[in-house]
Amino acid sequence: MQGLLDSIIENNKYLVKEGKVASYIPVLGKGNPDHLGIAVTTLDGREYLAGDWEVKYTMQSISKVISLMLAIMDKGSRNVFSKVGMEPTGDGFNSIVNLEVKKLNKPYNPMINAGAIVISSLIEGRTVEERIRRIVSFAQKITDNNSIRVNEEVYQSEQETGDRNRALAYFMKSNNILSGSVKESLEVYFKQCSIEVNSRDISRIGAMLANDGILPWTGERVISRETARIVKTIMVTCGMYDESGEFAVHIGIPAKSGVGGGIMAAVPRRMGIGVFGPSLDDKGNSIAGIKMLQELSKELDLSIF
Amino acid sequence: MQGLLDSIIENNKYLVKEGKVASYIPVLGKGNPDHLGIAVTTLDGREYLAGDWEVKYTMQSISKVISLMLAIMDKGSRNVFSKVGMEPTGDGFNSIVNLEVKKLNKPYNPMINAGAIVISSLIEGRTVEERIRRIVSFAQKITDNNSIRVNEEVYQSEQETGDRNRALAYFMKSNNILSGSVKESLEVYFKQCSIEVNSRDISRIGAMLANDGILPWTGERVISRETARIVKTIMVTCGMYDESGEFAVHIGIPAKSGVGGGIMAAVPRRMGIGVFGPSLDDKGNSIAGIKMLQELSKELDLSIF
Amino acid sequence: MQGLLDSIIENNKYLVKEGKVASYIPVLGKGNPDHLGIAVTTLDGREYLAGDWEVKYTMQSISKVISLMLAIMDKGSRNVFSKVGMEPTGDGFNSIVNLEVKKLNKPYNPMINAGAIVISSLIEGRTVEERIRRIVSFAQKITDNNSIRVNEEVYQSEQETGDRNRALAYFMKSNNILSGSVKESLEVYFKQCSIEVNSRDISRIGAMLANDGILPWTGERVISRETARIVKTIMVTCGMYDESGEFAVHIGIPAKSGVGGGIMAAVPRRMGIGVFGPSLDDKGNSIAGIKMLQELSKELDLSIF
Amino acid sequence: MQGLLDSIIENNKYLVKEGKVASYIPVLGKGNPDHLGIAVTTLDGREYLAGDWEVKYTMQSISKVISLMLAIMDKGSRNVFSKVGMEPTGDGFNSIVNLEVKKLNKPYNPMINAGAIVISSLIEGRTVEERIRRIVSFAQKITDNNSIRVNEEVYQSEQETGDRNRALAYFMKSNNILSGSVKESLEVYFKQCSIEVNSRDISRIGAMLANDGILPWTGERVISRETARIVKTIMVTCGMYDESGEFAVHIGIPAKSGVGGGIMAAVPRRMGIGVFGPSLDDKGNSIAGIKMLQELSKELDLSIF
Repeated sequence: MQGLLDSIIENNKYLVKEGKVASYIPVLGKGNPDHLGIAVTTLDGREYLAGDWEVKYTMQSISKVISLMLAIMDKGSRNVFSKVGMEPTGDGFNSIVNLEVKKLNKPYNPMINAGAIVISSLIEGRTVEERIRRIVSFAQKITDNNSIRVNEEVYQSEQETGDRNRALAYFMKSNNILSGSVKESLEVYFKQCSIEVNSRDISRIGAMLANDGILPWTGERVISRETARIVKTIMVTCGMYDESGEFAVHIGIPAKSGVGGGIMAAVPRRMGIGVFGPSLDDKGNSIAGIKMLQELSKELDLSIF
Repeated sequence: MQGLLDSIIENNKYLVKEGKVASYIPVLGKGNPDHLGIAVTTLDGREYLAGDWEVKYTMQSISKVISLMLAIMDKGSRNVFSKVGMEPTGDGFNSIVNLEVKKLNKPYNPMINAGAIVISSLIEGRTVEERIRRIVSFAQKITDNNSIRVNEEVYQSEQETGDRNRALAYFMKSNNILSGSVKESLEVYFKQCSIEVNSRDISRIGAMLANDGILPWTGERVISRETARIVKTIMVTCGMYDESGEFAVHIGIPAKSGVGGGIMAAVPRRMGIGVFGPSLDDKGNSIAGIKMLQELSKELDLSIF
Repeated sequence: MQGLLDSIIENNKYLVKEGKVASYIPVLGKGNPDHLGIAVTTLDGREYLAGDWEVKYTMQSISKVISLMLAIMDKGSRNVFSKVGMEPTGDGFNSIVNLEVKKLNKPYNPMINAGAIVISSLIEGRTVEERIRRIVSFAQKITDNNSIRVNEEVYQSEQETGDRNRALAYFMKSNNILSGSVKESLEVYFKQCSIEVNSRDISRIGAMLANDGILPWTGERVISRETARIVKTIMVTCGMYDESGEFAVHIGIPAKSGVGGGIMAAVPRRMGIGVFGPSLDDKGNSIAGIKMLQELSKELDLSIF
Repeated sequence: MQGLLDSIIENNKYLVKEGKVASYIPVLGKGNPDHLGIAVTTLDGREYLAGDWEVKYTMQSISKVISLMLAIMDKGSRNVFSKVGMEPTGDGFNSIVNLEVKKLNKPYNPMINAGAIVISSLIEGRTVEERIRRIVSFAQKITDNNSIRVNEEVYQSEQETGDRNRALAYFMKSNNILSGSVKESLEVYFKQCSIEVNSRDISRIGAMLANDGILPWTGERVISRETARIVKTIMVTCGMYDESGEFAVHIGIPAKSGVGGGIMAAVPRRMGIGVFGPSLDDKGNSIAGIKMLQELSKELDLSIF
């Protein structure tokens, strides 16, 4: 395995020149496009690390999986999915169109921004701070890494450039799709996006999901088997933005990407994978990340289909 | 003329039972649906008043005409129309859809909310207060009524229920259609909507426009002939929400309605008209107001077509 | 007047180099972009002709006005407008979107293709041939020109390239917006678009409309005053494709353009105008045609606003 | 297994009263809503049959899987997916909207009508008849049932009521998404939808897919492993219309439904399933069919997630 990961890093180094580092949040634009990292955590708890696996990046949309799990734990899946759907959509992650023209009473799914903002509003806590603390704390648990933090500089940048998300949130508020304070829901959302991790952390989250909700390193169950299954399924149908269908066909692993350059993947009954490469394709997915997962999937026959 | 107006009020009293008073802003919902008023100001300065012409109501969308005139005076029409279009749209007054799907770089026209919010952002003034003061002051001048004020209770209600307008504004901000502070632009917009007038006030605005920009009662020019023409034209194509086309065919007068129940009409070279009836049709236009204008247009052959 | 028209032709000759001759119908693409013609028919029956006024072109969308008048004569305006609306739309002339997303039960207006196809289906006649004959015959009457014909080569070209219109028609058929035979309605529609005229013919149609439905040269009434008013109003709000609003503001005359390069304009109580210049802007309107109308409107103060 | 299937039929009989038999094609509306059938073909070739498994119904959208496999065999997957995408869409199966507003150069996926019509246009054959014969013949092979035929009455009904599909096809033709004859592509498409099968036939198709392209009863490979994987993946993300996401979460099996009331499911490495119940939910899926699959999936732990 270690040799495989090393050669995957080697094989895909040329890809760091393609695509673009996310720039819509200025701080992200400072990311070093040459980084390339991969980490695998198997279900017996072993870890394989290669390339720039230690480099930190913010979770961005990968955090949508974290908050979805926590919201289901807090409110139950029936309740959560009465407020957010489970259907993939061909529309972009920040689209308002269908909320308006189809008069939807809930966003399509928790992986688009509209759905994720609703999910953020469901996280329990008496104050915004407590809600954020609970998310960070849950992230620390499932990554077995207590040093995980919100990157405050990225958070500030998200706040300053978050007008499209404000538009989504106020639109949903005006249609009674979002309840509670818009400002607080957005604060929670922007903070969760700004949680900083490395590829090993991410691979551990994937491993827990691959292991049906049980932490491989302690045997502790953190989410129900049912929740793990729901989350993995939604990752397949909606996890890779508008490229989810193609990713499912070519790679066939439940995965969630973020514009920070990371991808978290969970191979049922086998392993969790974290990959990192900040250059993105025009859908917002890491170019090198997808290629590395494709190579790994092919080598180890990881597709679930 | 006085007899005609009296009989128009009489003929249309039965209509106050149809439609609904606007309720999306709670304070508006308290409006008395039995009110029915009409006022005519002719270009020689005479005024004819009938029914509940003295009853006050908030301008709501009628204020879009006021701020448009002021913005053109402040910035010039070329500049204003580089930021807001002149094209009618079949979409609702608060639609975001086309801004997203057509990737518009400006709202269709100044009579839909998106366009009106951009117009509000163009009004000059060092502070929000000054910008609002300038709008109120301009409204006082063209109504020859220094007692005109913002209704603060309605303003509060607009603020509390303005999430859809916030969504529009943040969407435009995120797409660089709206510049400057979103909060301030919305404050100006909500305040201008809450300016309180009666039907005589409204008829005077119409008379000034009918008179190509000159106040009939003093002979003073307040806007250029060109600006008056632009405003009247946009009133014809876009002034009555999604009913503008039908209104043009059946009545044929430049007019602008507001969900407060008022309609301001300008008959070129003849008169200004203000009508009031708070019960609205499903497009947001005063049912009795339209009928009264139709009767007046037919009796006096007012259609410009 | 003659001098004015001559100088307008002269002043705008440089414009024939801008824009593009319509190419979506191959035969139209053969049009000579250097042509520039103008004709005015006043309400006392005098005619002023300048430039390439004799050059023939196909009516294209200008024919929508002809068939609308005939349909109203055949079925009555109430009936016609129960099947086609009167509202302008910001969407393109061949858009299907709003028929689908807004579940419209009728097209926005008779000037977009969807509406015009429905109008074609309302023209009476036992056979397609008879329906077409009636349209041509009506066109001959209101142009005082019995030599008017369908250009069969253009018609063939329309048939061959009419798939977008077929899509519109079948969509409306499937939603019960269009009744009767799709093929026949399209045949009527394609034929009416292919009627060949020159600028004098077009100016005469405008003169009849300007004269409230009475042919200036004989005093014969061919359509009711009401119908003339409806048609002129719809020309203002919807006649110039997505440029109708701007045209109304800058020129202020009821007008209808066609991608053949012609524009028919009707100045109420004053004159009909026909202009011709095959180079189109990106909305589908004759660039030189609009400029010539603008110059004429300014010189003679023709705006109705 | 047999006992399980019998009890599943028994448990779900009450559901035949819910939902509605498809009526948009009149002949389908004659379906007996009381029918309920299930068939399982395991990868060792054994078959388990229960309820009305022998009742015949037309494939409708299930045929989209057949033609997709054949098109890939004819043209190669790279070629096929250059003309049709692989992405799920939240829009209805017969939507035109996104083709227009997003200016797509190919339909989202082969499971919506637009995509399936393009796929039909790719099936090889010198004549329409030959292309249809090849599809039927391929269906016969993968169901091991040479008596499979097109139901001509249903085909006639499809033809007569197929205007929405005509609209889609002509729209795609006008945008160069569809090449070749619209009429022929639609004839192929309507015929493939009208192929009549029973639940055992359907379960065999599922078994072949579950077996990675090899017929379990002969060991013969009919499609490549790669093609089988592509097809199953697209069935997960797009196979159950707008309910695909929910079906994946709750049942987790690659499946394709048809408005005839059938659902074909392929459980990788385990079995093919055919279920039948003509009463549909508002998405167009068999209500009892989904419930029976859900029960089976739960009992046998079939979810791939």
